[in-house]
Amino acid sequence: MKAIVIKNGRGDADSLFISDSEPLPEPLTAGTALVKVSAFALNRMDILQREGLYPLPPHAPSILGVEFSGVVEALFPSDMSQFAVGDAVFGLAVGGAYAQFIKCDIRLLTKYPAHDPKIELSFLAAAGVPEVWYTATQALLYIAEIHKNSNNVKNILIHAGASGVGIAALQIARSVLGPDAKLFATVGSDKKVKALQELVPCTAINYNTQSFVDEILKATDNKGADVIVDFIGQAYFQKNIDTVALDGRIVMLSLMSGAIAEKVNVGTILRKRCRIEGSTLRSRSVSYQSEIKKLFEEYSLPKLLQGKFVNPVDSVFKYTDIIKAHKYMESNVSMGKIICVVDDTLQTAA
Amino acid sequence: MKAIVIKNGRGDADSLFISDSEPLPEPLTAGTALVKVSAFALNRMDILQREGLYPLPPHAPSILGVEFSGVVEALFPSDMSQFAVGDAVFGLAVGGAYAQFIKCDIRLLTKYPAHDPKIELSFLAAAGVPEVWYTATQALLYIAEIHKNSNNVKNILIHAGASGVGIAALQIARSVLGPDAKLFATVGSDKKVKALQELVPCTAINYNTQSFVDEILKATDNKGADVIVDFIGQAYFQKNIDTVALDGRIVMLSLMSGAIAEKVNVGTILRKRCRIEGSTLRSRSVSYQSEIKKLFEEYSLPKLLQGKFVNPVDSVFKYTDIIKAHKYMESNVSMGKIICVVDDTLQTAA
Repeated sequence: MKAIVIKNGRGDADSLFISDSEPLPEPLTAGTALVKVSAFALNRMDILQREGLYPLPPHAPSILGVEFSGVVEALFPSDMSQFAVGDAVFGLAVGGAYAQFIKCDIRLLTKYPAHDPKIELSFLAAAGVPEVWYTATQALLYIAEIHKNSNNVKNILIHAGASGVGIAALQIARSVLGPDAKLFATVGSDKKVKALQELVPCTAINYNTQSFVDEILKATDNKGADVIVDFIGQAYFQKNIDTVALDGRIVMLSLMSGAIAEKVNVGTILRKRCRIEGSTLRSRSVSYQSEIKKLFEEYSLPKLLQGKFVNPVDSVFKYTDIIKAHKYMESNVSMGKIICVVDDTLQTAA
Repeated sequence: MKAIVIKNGRGDADSLFISDSEPLPEPLTAGTALVKVSAFALNRMDILQREGLYPLPPHAPSILGVEFSGVVEALFPSDMSQFAVGDAVFGLAVGGAYAQFIKCDIRLLTKYPAHDPKIELSFLAAAGVPEVWYTATQALLYIAEIHKNSNNVKNILIHAGASGVGIAALQIARSVLGPDAKLFATVGSDKKVKALQELVPCTAINYNTQSFVDEILKATDNKGADVIVDFIGQAYFQKNIDTVALDGRIVMLSLMSGAIAEKVNVGTILRKRCRIEGSTLRSRSVSYQSEIKKLFEEYSLPKLLQGKFVNPVDSVFKYTDIIKAHKYMESNVSMGKIICVVDDTLQTAA
C-alpha cells in the first residue's frame, strides 16, 4: 500500500514522502478491522513524533496519524454485529493513519451515517473529530465529571480556548451546563477573542493583555472557576490554583510552556480542597479510550452530525501534499483541523 | 455550665482556665442534641486555635474541642428514631467539646454500646476516635476510594505513619486491601519504626536516615505507590510526585513543613496521569462529614468496638488539668490520643 513515511526515521517536514510499497498492517487480531482510509487529520503530536520527540506507546506503529475516516475493508471475526464490510467509519488509532489502510480496534470506531442526507458533518471533517472531541470529553466528562455535578459547576475556564480541544470543550460545557454557566477561555489575540465568542457564547480573555486570574475572580465574586482545563503547564500552574474555586478541579492535558513550576503554594491546594489531575489520551488502554468514545457518542456525536456542534476545518490538502500540510501546521496560523484526503474520489472541499 | 475558656481569647497553655458560668449552648435547632460530655480528646488544631492561628469555620463556637464521648441530655425534636435521651454516644463537632455540655448535629453522632460486655473500646477512648478515624476514612475511602479500586491499589504510602491518623489509615488500608498489599509509612525515628511495625504490619521508613522515594521505588520495581496520604506539604510535594505510581492518587491533609514548594516538575503529574487532591475535615459541611461518618461506621466501627482495630490512647487527664494536658501535647512525646475526663464518675484509666 501507499503510506507516508519519514526519511531516516525522523526529521523535518521535508523528510516526509510517499512510499509505494509499505506492507499492509497485519495480522488482523480478534476485534480488529482493516479500514481503507478516506482522510486523516493532522495533530501537533504528529510533528513531535516526526521529529523523534514524542514518547510513543510501545504498541504504536511507525507510521504517523491518530485519526481518520474511511471504509471498512475487512473484519476479524467477519460476522461482527456492530460493523460490516463497506461501513463508513471514523475513529482514533494509536498511529498509522497516514496510509491507504489502517488496522484498528473496533472499540474505537464510530459509524458514519453516509447515506443520511440530513447529516451536516462531512465525511472529510469526521476524520478530524476523534482526537479533539475525545480529549475534550475526557477532560470535562470523564475526569471533571461536569455531567454528574452540573448543579455545582457554574464556572469553567478552558485554556487555549481557540484550539480544537478548546472549541470542543466550550461547546460540551455549554450543552451540559446550560445557558447560565459562565464559560471563560484564554486566547492569544483580540482577533481570536472575537472569533471564539462568535463561535461559542463565552468570555474570551486575551492572555497577552489581561490577567485571567483577575478577570475570572472579578467575574465570579472571587469564587473562581469550578473546573479548569489546562494545556499550558508550568506558567499557569500557580495561576490555576489561584483561580480555581473551593472544591474545584484542574485537569492538565499538556505542557505548552514547559514542565518546571518555580514556586507553588501547595497550601492553597489544601485550603481550596481542590483536585489537580494530569491526563493523556494516546498512552491509554483501548478499554479506557473506548469508555471515552461512549461518552463522546452519547454527549457530542448526535449534535456534531446535526451541525449543532461545530468542529471547524481550517484547510484540506491532498495527502500527496503532506509536506505542505505539515509546514502549514508549523506556521501556527490555522484555526481548526487540517485534513488530508487519501481517497482521490472524495472532493477536497470539506 | 463549666467549660474551659481562654483568658483574653487567645494565648499559651497557661491562658486556659475553667469557667463556672458559661451559658449552655443553645438554642437546640431541629436535628441537634445536647450531650453531657463524659470525655473529650485533644488535637493539634486545638493548640493552633488557642493561639489564634487556626482559620475557624464561621459557625464554630469559641470553646475548643472537636471530639467527645457523652450521654444524650436532650434532643430536638424529642422523638427521633435514631437516638434517645440517655444514649451513650461519641462524635465530631465543629467545636465546643471542652465543656460539660455540647450541642451537636445528630448526623455526626455514633451510638456507643455501653451495656455490651464484649466491647473492647472504652467509653473514654471513644472520645478520641472521630477526628482520627474520620480523617483516615476521608483520605483512603472517600477521596482515594481504595475500597472501590482494591484490585488496582497494591501499594500505599502513609506519611506521619505513627500519628493517630497514620495508625488508623494503615489499619484501614490493611483491612480493605488484604495481606498482600504493600503498606509504607514514614516515621521520625528507629524507635517509631519498631513500635509502628509491631502495631500494624507495614514497612516503616525512618525519614531522617532513609529516602522514602528510593525505598519505595526499590520495593515496588519502580512502580511507586498507588496512593499517598500526605501531611507534610512543601518538603514532600515533589517527592510524592516522584513516588506516586502511574494513575496514582496523592491526598494532602496538612502542611507540617510549610506551604511553598520550590521547583515542581508538573510534567511528571501529566506523564504519571496522577491526581493530587487537598482536603480538610473541619471546614466541611455536616452533610459531607456525615457521609464520612457512614463510611467510618461501615468499615471501621465494628472492628474498633471488637478490638480488631486499635486507637492507641497515650494518656488520660482530668479536664481540670487542661493546662498540663496541653503542655504535654506540646512536648511532642505522645504517641496516641490524649483524653480529658469531664465526668468525675468515670475512671481516669482508659
